[in-house]
Amino acid sequence: MRKLLLFLCIISSLALSAQNQDSLRIRAIYDEALTSLKSYDYLRELCKGIGHRLTASPNSYKAIDWGYDLLKSLGADTVYKQEIMVPHWVRNEKSSVKIKGEQKPLHATALGMSIGTDGKTIEGELLIVHQLKELDTLGAEVVKDKIVLYNRALNPRFINTGNAYGSCFDQRWWGASNAAKYGAKAVLVRSLSLKEDSFPHSGGMRYVDTIKRIPSAAISIKDANRLGQLYLNGEKPTITMKMNCELRPDTIHYNVVAEIKGSEFPDEIITIGGHLDSWDLGEGAHDDGAGIAHTIEAMRLLLQTGYRPQRTLRFVLFMNEENGNMGGKTYAKYAKEKGENHYCAIESDRGGFTPRGFTIDGPNEHVKHIQQWADLLAPYDINVLKKGWGGVDIKPLKENGPITLIGYLPDNQRYFDHHHAASDVLENVHPRELELGAASIASLIYLIDTYGLPARILEQEKKEIH
Amino acid sequence: MRKLLLFLCIISSLALSAQNQDSLRIRAIYDEALTSLKSYDYLRELCKGIGHRLTASPNSYKAIDWGYDLLKSLGADTVYKQEIMVPHWVRNEKSSVKIKGEQKPLHATALGMSIGTDGKTIEGELLIVHQLKELDTLGAEVVKDKIVLYNRALNPRFINTGNAYGSCFDQRWWGASNAAKYGAKAVLVRSLSLKEDSFPHSGGMRYVDTIKRIPSAAISIKDANRLGQLYLNGEKPTITMKMNCELRPDTIHYNVVAEIKGSEFPDEIITIGGHLDSWDLGEGAHDDGAGIAHTIEAMRLLLQTGYRPQRTLRFVLFMNEENGNMGGKTYAKYAKEKGENHYCAIESDRGGFTPRGFTIDGPNEHVKHIQQWADLLAPYDINVLKKGWGGVDIKPLKENGPITLIGYLPDNQRYFDHHHAASDVLENVHPRELELGAASIASLIYLIDTYGLPARILEQEKKEIH
Repeated sequence: MRKLLLFLCIISSLALSAQNQDSLRIRAIYDEALTSLKSYDYLRELCKGIGHRLTASPNSYKAIDWGYDLLKSLGADTVYKQEIMVPHWVRNEKSSVKIKGEQKPLHATALGMSIGTDGKTIEGELLIVHQLKELDTLGAEVVKDKIVLYNRALNPRFINTGNAYGSCFDQRWWGASNAAKYGAKAVLVRSLSLKEDSFPHSGGMRYVDTIKRIPSAAISIKDANRLGQLYLNGEKPTITMKMNCELRPDTIHYNVVAEIKGSEFPDEIITIGGHLDSWDLGEGAHDDGAGIAHTIEAMRLLLQTGYRPQRTLRFVLFMNEENGNMGGKTYAKYAKEKGENHYCAIESDRGGFTPRGFTIDGPNEHVKHIQQWADLLAPYDINVLKKGWGGVDIKPLKENGPITLIGYLPDNQRYFDHHHAASDVLENVHPRELELGAASIASLIYLIDTYGLPARILEQEKKEIH
Repeated sequence: MRKLLLFLCIISSLALSAQNQDSLRIRAIYDEALTSLKSYDYLRELCKGIGHRLTASPNSYKAIDWGYDLLKSLGADTVYKQEIMVPHWVRNEKSSVKIKGEQKPLHATALGMSIGTDGKTIEGELLIVHQLKELDTLGAEVVKDKIVLYNRALNPRFINTGNAYGSCFDQRWWGASNAAKYGAKAVLVRSLSLKEDSFPHSGGMRYVDTIKRIPSAAISIKDANRLGQLYLNGEKPTITMKMNCELRPDTIHYNVVAEIKGSEFPDEIITIGGHLDSWDLGEGAHDDGAGIAHTIEAMRLLLQTGYRPQRTLRFVLFMNEENGNMGGKTYAKYAKEKGENHYCAIESDRGGFTPRGFTIDGPNEHVKHIQQWADLLAPYDINVLKKGWGGVDIKPLKENGPITLIGYLPDNQRYFDHHHAASDVLENVHPRELELGAASIASLIYLIDTYGLPARILEQEKKEIH
């Protein structure tokens, strides 16, 4: 009995001491973070020193060199550029979308990957719809030769603005092909934002291969509202459009990868990343300069506080998330070819606002395991550890085999105000909010690396799904 | 056995149906909130229509009329102005604090309740300290005739910026008397902010009755850093100061009180409030226009969604929180005189940012009781329900007897950037973030009113404290 008591005492004091050590380690990470605020310096270099970084633009190559040099200078074991092939879309001169007869153009911008108007100005009578399906009902008779505006507004009832964004995403993504089916000349899309202002918000779109390609542009919410009002008043204005954007041949590009070798389990790889490319309006500060700053600063915080990982940590600046995801896809392809064991991956691609927590795309057992750390993270206002989305860049790793993906979750109320728009600039990022994100990611990496994740039981997971 | 099962079934289905009803009620509150965003309209009227609202200034009287009319128009059962006596401090013309020999003044502002320089320009050699105690060590020999700058910076290691603010608050509050003890001519205080910019941040200060009063001003962090640097370089510049602020005789003022009578327990009063006065820089948008907008909008949301309370709800726009708290004190005094039963009070005075939750100044049992609602509130990103601070305006109610105070807790990272400064303007408040605060307060009022709080057992509470 005494032996048992002694044993229990030792075990519980070991557990307490481990918890104490964790708590001190996390405190050290946050202290270093909040007294240096380095992530904001990195973001300033990226946003003001380089600017926006559309895939295959001159700036995007500069950003790669910048990231490579910075990660090297911060003391990663190895840093390399990982070759990828990427689409090369170019906006060229500014789009011009007008109401015929008016001098002043609407606040419009070509959607990424859209074709242009072939050097011409095209025109068509405006047709406004709010659902993709409406065009099926109207049919070619009504739609032919029109310029279609998709004018469904984001649903403000969603608490998470990401869900509001999701509620209108189809208009931007499938709108062109959906209208081209019935002979529309071009489409306009109401910007995917909750803020009524004059910024058009760009973003990717996709053509269905079997349908004729037509030009596609976003217009600002104020302009969309104005057109909606004209339409309600019975006016059917003619819209003129000129866009010189074009898709050039695919070209060579790079992810930037920095590695810290694991001391105990070097073959188990934890990937941490964001994407280095951005749209070519604003500075890509929140999307996803913040994720890049988080990634680099998380590495620095771990090294600076003297942490040496058991597992191999890979800090990845992905290229081409916005219009092809070839960075993420190719990273996963190389991983498969090399037979790498990807243990877990974390992405920051939801902006640089105050941390709320993390969402976990993995089995329930992993979610529960991570929730055990809630008390260690709560003093840092990390309150959410729940099942959810991982990230676009890390998602392709799932095709290689079971992996748990984790998405950094900042406050989201302001994110879509600036998303893909000219207002996504450094000034709209707050130094402490950004830095707290980096510290929370570094802390989570520390915990996952130190305690691991439970072995996955695939039979169990199948049951969860069904 | 069958009867027992039937009984359990009925009980659990009743519980489920109650939960479902709560969930629908809260959803209705948020739907109304997010589709109308009325709190931002109210805040616009207050900030742009009226402006800043220093107690007893012409604007503060305008704000009272505005609040009274608005609460009446929104359908409260009764609305009245509650008379209070308040201090009447006036800044008069702008302060001028200079380094002698320089043309351009420092970015300075008189601290609230400070005396002026009696029409003269005073001057003294600069003495910089970082702790109040330093002056005890230096003594009159060194301190006499100096102008003392308290230059301790906020500690950035705190996650909650309110704690960082607290870590330097003594400089502003007690700095003048502490330096006057040793014959200092005046004091300057480094602004209580974590943002390095040129805005001086005002705020209240207090004189010790037995010590000679000397002028006291805040300077911007950039200026404080510059003076610190000069000092490090061995320079001891002379500072000149002219301030025309003055304390006039106390005057009559008002709280605005709107009431919705309880249907079941009309004598049990739940107070919800913020403060209508502000400092006279900026527009008092976050401090505490946000709390005023929350208070008014919480009332509107409950009425608009058809809720009729069981207990009496009092929505109070308190006056004079910033320099005397006579609104809060007098509200409590009247409550005592009338023998009112104050059941619980909620205050919003920490800004208009995204909700994180509520802090509860009450017995453990009440904290646990409120935490039972966590699952109802989590879908709205209300994640924090914990013991903590209530609010300045509602605190005097504690002197009347046991009461549970609740403080609305928004995200706090940006709050002190603007606090008491010229940048505390409407543009720095986000419509959805503000509105989510109003909806979360309305939801909590609904839950407290519907389920009550456990009867307080004072013996139990005494044990908690010891």
